[in-house]
Amino acid sequence: MTTPSVYLDRVTRELAKLPGIGHKSASRIAFHLLKMPRPEVENIASSMIDLKNNIRTCVECGGISDTEVCSLCADPGIDRGTLCVVEGARDVLNIEASGEFRGLYHVLSGLISPLDGIGPEDLNIRTLINKCGAGGLYEIIMALSPTIEGDATTLYLASLILPFGIKVTRIAHGLPVGSDLEYVDSATIAKSIEGRVRI
Amino acid sequence: MTTPSVYLDRVTRELAKLPGIGHKSASRIAFHLLKMPRPEVENIASSMIDLKNNIRTCVECGGISDTEVCSLCADPGIDRGTLCVVEGARDVLNIEASGEFRGLYHVLSGLISPLDGIGPEDLNIRTLINKCGAGGLYEIIMALSPTIEGDATTLYLASLILPFGIKVTRIAHGLPVGSDLEYVDSATIAKSIEGRVRI
Repeated sequence: MTTPSVYLDRVTRELAKLPGIGHKSASRIAFHLLKMPRPEVENIASSMIDLKNNIRTCVECGGISDTEVCSLCADPGIDRGTLCVVEGARDVLNIEASGEFRGLYHVLSGLISPLDGIGPEDLNIRTLINKCGAGGLYEIIMALSPTIEGDATTLYLASLILPFGIKVTRIAHGLPVGSDLEYVDSATIAKSIEGRVRI
Repeated sequence: MTTPSVYLDRVTRELAKLPGIGHKSASRIAFHLLKMPRPEVENIASSMIDLKNNIRTCVECGGISDTEVCSLCADPGIDRGTLCVVEGARDVLNIEASGEFRGLYHVLSGLISPLDGIGPEDLNIRTLINKCGAGGLYEIIMALSPTIEGDATTLYLASLILPFGIKVTRIAHGLPVGSDLEYVDSATIAKSIEGRVRI
């Protein structure tokens, strides 16, 4: 196969390195870039570079931030007595998007997974325990994925937090909103019955 | 919803402008960029800018090119007696990838579509007729999409080319390779019977 443009080949190859973009999608995007006005393409490119140059980790929650302390941790309007523990920085955005939580976050940067060689010492746990000891927290919400690693991490952290006299809760596992009972797996149905609530 | 990073927001918004990338995918890619080494992100960004700065239209076929005449038209090893007519520059790449054609291309830059106000004069047809008049062509293969617009354009162009005594063919319409007869639509099955070949 002869290629009419090395520039087109290169951008297609580079885009195909991104998650969820295969060769066909990358080629489609490359041809779309050809049709876009130059300033718009420059905007996309510069937004990527700016991201790499400016983003950092919040010293408080361990999530992403533009400043030393992120805007979520610095927000004067939040409830500083509740803290939500998540696996990664993306989870913070997803929970924020739900609009259901207005408290502090704590990003573990992973889950305990002995099979992958990840133990408690590899995660952002020491600072979490320090926060428990500092006082002021009355509830810690564990918002980890309902997997073996997520559940193991939840139970391990609960055993460390409970001695401080802080309430530990876990987000509900059950049927996703809008799902069809017919297509939901039996483990999820079991969880939804176990966690049933009074109407 | 409070956002912890305006840079992350911006790159997510910019990526979501690309075809096939929604907000969720854009957010996933943005977080992937955060984890990638800086030179790799710079490579992606610069490949987009280089594409915009360097690509042009081949003066021969009307496809994309890095030079005045594209590498496909300049290739000394091709059969200059056959010419394949396609709708857009992407089709050239797809046909090249099949490895089944080794001749000249001609990009129409569209299809005749009265409903969209696109007539023959809006397409790259005059240069095609000039090529027919210049001599040397013995077969023109119409490789347009099997749609109303594609079929209309094929018939219109055939009526212009045939007076030059050049053979005009059309790529086969039928069952896609690997498809299941059970799930193929009846119009395609009709086309596959109409275009049946002797074994």
